[in-house]
Formats: sequence, structure tokens, C-alpha cells
Amino acid sequence: MFACTGYAAQAADAPLAPFSFERRDPGPDDVQIEILYCGVCHSDIHMARGEWGVSVFPVVPGHEIVGKVVKVGANVSKFAPGQLAGVGCMVDSCQECASCRDGEEQYCEKGFTGTYNDPDKKTPGQRTYGGYSGAITVDQKFVLRIPETLELKAVAPLLCAGITTYSPLRHWKVGPGQKVGIVGLGGLGHMAVKLAVAMGADVTLFTTSAGKIEDGKRLGAQHVVISKDPDAMAKEASSFDFILDCVAAKHDINEYLRLLKRDGSLVQVGIPPEGLDVQVFSIAFPRRHFSGSLIGGIAETQEMLDFCAEHGIVSDIEMITIDKINEAYERVVRSDVKYRFVIDMASLPKAA
Amino acid sequence: MFACTGYAAQAADAPLAPFSFERRDPGPDDVQIEILYCGVCHSDIHMARGEWGVSVFPVVPGHEIVGKVVKVGANVSKFAPGQLAGVGCMVDSCQECASCRDGEEQYCEKGFTGTYNDPDKKTPGQRTYGGYSGAITVDQKFVLRIPETLELKAVAPLLCAGITTYSPLRHWKVGPGQKVGIVGLGGLGHMAVKLAVAMGADVTLFTTSAGKIEDGKRLGAQHVVISKDPDAMAKEASSFDFILDCVAAKHDINEYLRLLKRDGSLVQVGIPPEGLDVQVFSIAFPRRHFSGSLIGGIAETQEMLDFCAEHGIVSDIEMITIDKINEAYERVVRSDVKYRFVIDMASLPKAA
Repeated sequence: MFACTGYAAQAADAPLAPFSFERRDPGPDDVQIEILYCGVCHSDIHMARGEWGVSVFPVVPGHEIVGKVVKVGANVSKFAPGQLAGVGCMVDSCQECASCRDGEEQYCEKGFTGTYNDPDKKTPGQRTYGGYSGAITVDQKFVLRIPETLELKAVAPLLCAGITTYSPLRHWKVGPGQKVGIVGLGGLGHMAVKLAVAMGADVTLFTTSAGKIEDGKRLGAQHVVISKDPDAMAKEASSFDFILDCVAAKHDINEYLRLLKRDGSLVQVGIPPEGLDVQVFSIAFPRRHFSGSLIGGIAETQEMLDFCAEHGIVSDIEMITIDKINEAYERVVRSDVKYRFVIDMASLPKAA
Repeated sequence: MFACTGYAAQAADAPLAPFSFERRDPGPDDVQIEILYCGVCHSDIHMARGEWGVSVFPVVPGHEIVGKVVKVGANVSKFAPGQLAGVGCMVDSCQECASCRDGEEQYCEKGFTGTYNDPDKKTPGQRTYGGYSGAITVDQKFVLRIPETLELKAVAPLLCAGITTYSPLRHWKVGPGQKVGIVGLGGLGHMAVKLAVAMGADVTLFTTSAGKIEDGKRLGAQHVVISKDPDAMAKEASSFDFILDCVAAKHDINEYLRLLKRDGSLVQVGIPPEGLDVQVFSIAFPRRHFSGSLIGGIAETQEMLDFCAEHGIVSDIEMITIDKINEAYERVVRSDVKYRFVIDMASLPKAA
């Protein structure tokens, strides 16, 4: 074990604050990473504040991790000290079920081990602590190679926001000749626009805010529709092959289902705490599909990183030092960030 | 034009009663059919009672029509007087849009012409009147061949309840080696069980009523699960390839979504008046699909009838004379029928 510092929530109503803990030394299959940057995901806030009812405190959030390899175990051949490496939302899975065998560890039938707040099979008695910390030790199977050509700090959000949007775009085979809608311009939505455009689709951004028209176009969307304008929405009826809904607040999903062509799919990646009310006629006439999707598999995450390197895609970020994390949380809740906070881990105190 | 009698609702709050009207004589592409039997669909009740807000009175319901060809137009080669014929939920469509070209007239982009309560392009100024009547004139493209080997009166419900369940079972490629759930044992559900079993799937019926276990097995379901039993439901978690939900009342759809494997689909064919609340986690972990489906195309309806002839499948019916139609409606609303009422049209008064 080695000493590590980070930022943790000690209770649902406590602000994040410096926290000291121990990490395991790398075993034969492990990679030890010095964390340089960590993105701030809305899930971090839900978990730090106990909003999903599953938090076990202290919670060290953070699952958009990039850094430098410090040590590797005897069996590790893909990584060497000094190389860049990344860790996303998962650090382990059963490796035996149909989903794991298919490279879809995110759907592991026994449940994957989340990067934070999950029982850590490899460090018995401890729960996983995430990337708001100076270092992390992870099985090589869950460590990603990070392209050297991209701006490292802006790569961090790809590990969650990037793969969460890339996976459904790929699974539903988005590409040239397709009319694709992205709902909501935030952490997920801004990645979805960049990725869908790079895949060759004709992309329409749906936003409630006229102030985001310009930004949507800058990110590559060919069209922007203000979703509060019923006439503009009516014009788009039954015309989309695929819609990715990135809105994590309750909203009328039927307005978007009605925009799908026959056999078109709407995939919800924003996860509102309340259910979404689906009118059956919205999916029956014509036949339409409402689906979910959760992050992506490890091989697919690597594929996404390589795709981003090829197309020069990173996240639009705002850098913060870790002492500003509680203010950053307030701003994420208000959607006041373009489009992802990334913590500079050099700002972490050496001891808590 | 020729004189025709039928039963109509003259207002949303009026019982069905005898009604005289005129039908068009067959044009070059038309088939005139003497109606022998007509099934009673829950949609008939919704429309007769103005419950969908689109009824224009008088409404002559009925879209599960079987009978005998009486006359054919000059261009009609597929049908000859004396032959059996059927008409389902549609009597016309644009024939030009992508859906019509694909043989999916039920999703016609201009809207198909329903067998009742729609403006009738072929009889200007009149709305379509359905099968609670002595005769009907329909374009040959929307007339089905009826297998001679099946019991005719029990074929009638295949034209709506049969195709409504057959189409999604086929579209989602249900067959041997698949675990398939059917939710609700009523007019749609009992057809779905028979069809899915004939397609070779391993079929589980979900019902709220222990009294339906025996009937579910008699219809061919290999398994029956009482959906009010949380332990029985929990045992089925994440195990189904496909679920067809035939329940037209509001219910918790998440209970069934959670029974799907990764990439499994739940298709809703029962159409509750209220929306269904979908928890995003129910479709996100693992990736699952919630879809709609509406009746089926004409070619597919013919395929379904031929499939039923091959497998000896008809509907379980209770025959009524047309003067009992208002009582039958009350019983349908109470789900007190096993499993479809069929009107013997010989009971129709010769003049209203």
C-alpha cells in the first residue's frame, strides 16, 4: 500500500475536502498511474451528495482520469513507466459473462466495479476511490492508451462523456446520409455533436437556449433547432434516423420521439432522476424505438480515443484547481460550464 | 351506390343501434364483400364512445371482417364472386410513400384510411363505415384471401388482433432458441401466445390473474408467471430476448423492461390512454429497447393468414348476435370475454 491524497465527500451534505487514504501497490496485472487531470462529471455530484441513494462515504469521485504510468506489474506488457494512460468509469468486471466476453464490460451481468464507490475486489475491505486524487492503481485490462497528439487535459472528459456518446452512435451505425439529432448542449451533448459530425452524419442540435445556436454551429452541427419553438419542431416531424438525448432533467420525450422516421431510434444517455413518460402512439405510429445506453466497453473506449486522435477531437474544457471543486459543482448543477470542468491535479495538496 | 344496413353509434354517449346508409358500387379495382362475421376490437369501443377525441358520428365500427365476394371490378383478377375475403384495419393508403412502397401501409406517411371513421377518398363526402354492416366495398389491394381450411368466424379476429401481434413477432425475428414473454391474456395476448409458440419460441405468459394459468398453458405457453408476485418476477430478471406487451391499461412497464437481456426489446401493442413511465436505468443497464408497433402491412397480413392456415391457428371466440353488441362492449371493458367477441352478421336486421 502507498499513501495517497485526494478530495472526498465525508457525508451527503458535506463539501468535498482534502482526504488521505491508501492505494494498493501494483500487483502483477496492475498499472499504477500518477493522475495529472480528472474531468468533473455530473455523476460525481450525484454520488458525492448521495442523490442516488447508494453512496458509501467517504466518496472520492472522479472517473475521467488521465495521467502518466509510474509502475507496472510483471504481467503488464502494454504499458511502461512514463507513458500516458487513462481510466474511465470502470476498473473491473467479472470477465466471464456474455457481456464481458463480448467486450461490453459496462453491461457485466455481475455488475462492473465502478471507478469510485464500489466494493474493490482487488483491495478487500476497501471501496474504490476515484480520480480526484494523486494516483490510482488499476488492472491493465481497464487502462486505456492515450494518444500523444491530443491536448492531454482536454482528453480527460472523453473517458466518460466521450464514450457515453460514442458507443450509441457506433452501435446504431450513425454515418453519412443519416439525419441525426443531438438533444441538449452540455458535457455529453457537445461531445455527441463533435463525434456525430466526424462520423459523417447530418447533425441537428436541439437546444432550449437561443444563446447556444452559435456554439452548436461552431462545434460542427449543420442545423440548430430551438426546441421551445413548436413550429420549428413540427417541421422536423418523422424525419430523423437517430436521436441522442443528452438531457439529464425531466422533459417531454414524446416531442423528440415524434421526430423519428419509421424504425428510427432515440437513445437516452442523459439520466433524469424521474422517469420519462412515453405515449404509446409516439412509438407506434410509425414504429419507433426508445433505448438506453451506458458508457461503453473497454475496447470500444480505446477505439473512441483512437477515433478522436484521428479526427482531432477533444472536449471543450474549463480548467480548475481542486480547491475550487465545490464551486464547480454548483456551476455544473446550473449548467454554467462550457462544457466540462477538468481538475489540474498538480493543485492537490501533498498531504491532507 | 347501394343500400346497406349496419349498427352505428350516433353520439359518444349513445348505444349502438341499427343504421341505414349507402356504399359505393364496386369501381374497376374494387371488391364488394357480403360480410358474414366481424370481430369486436377494443378500438371499436374507443371510437364509438369518442374516447380518442377523433370520432365523427355516426360511427359504424368493425375492422375484423370476413365474408364472401359478391362482385368485382373489371381490373380485379385475384378475387372472384363466391370466394372468401377479408378486410382488416385499413382500406386505403397513398401507395407512394416509402412505407407504402415497403409494404408497410400501416405506416403510410400520409396516413392510411382506416376501415371506419376516416374520410373516404373513394366515396367523396362520406367517411368510412366499418364491418358492423351487411356489406363493404374495398380496393382489391386492401382485400385479403382467407384460407378455406380455417373456421371462418374464428378467422375474423386475425385481421386485427392476429396481425397486430404477428407483425412485431416477425419484425423482431422471434423463433426457436428465444425466450419470449407475452404480457396480458386478452384479445391480443391470446393470439400472441399462439403465434409465438407456432414460431418455435419458448413462451412465458405474464398475467395478473392466477385463474389464467391453465388457459395460458392450454394456448401453448410453456410457462406462466403471475406478475403480481415480486419473487417470481425477480427470478426472470434480464433473461428475455423479446417481450410483447398486450396490456391496454396503465401499468409499470419498468417491471417488464427489467426482464430483458442486453439488447432485448419490449414492444408495446396494447395502447393505454395514459403514457407509460420509463425509468432510464431500466433501459440503460443493460442496453434495452422499448418500441411500438401498429397492426401490419397488407402483404404481411396475407402472410399471417397463410401462417395461421399452416399451423391451424384461429382466435378463441364467443359468438354474439348484433343486438347484443352493447352488452358485449360492457364485457370487453371488464375483460370478460375469452378472448374475442365475433358478431354473426346474419343477425343484422334487413332494414334499419
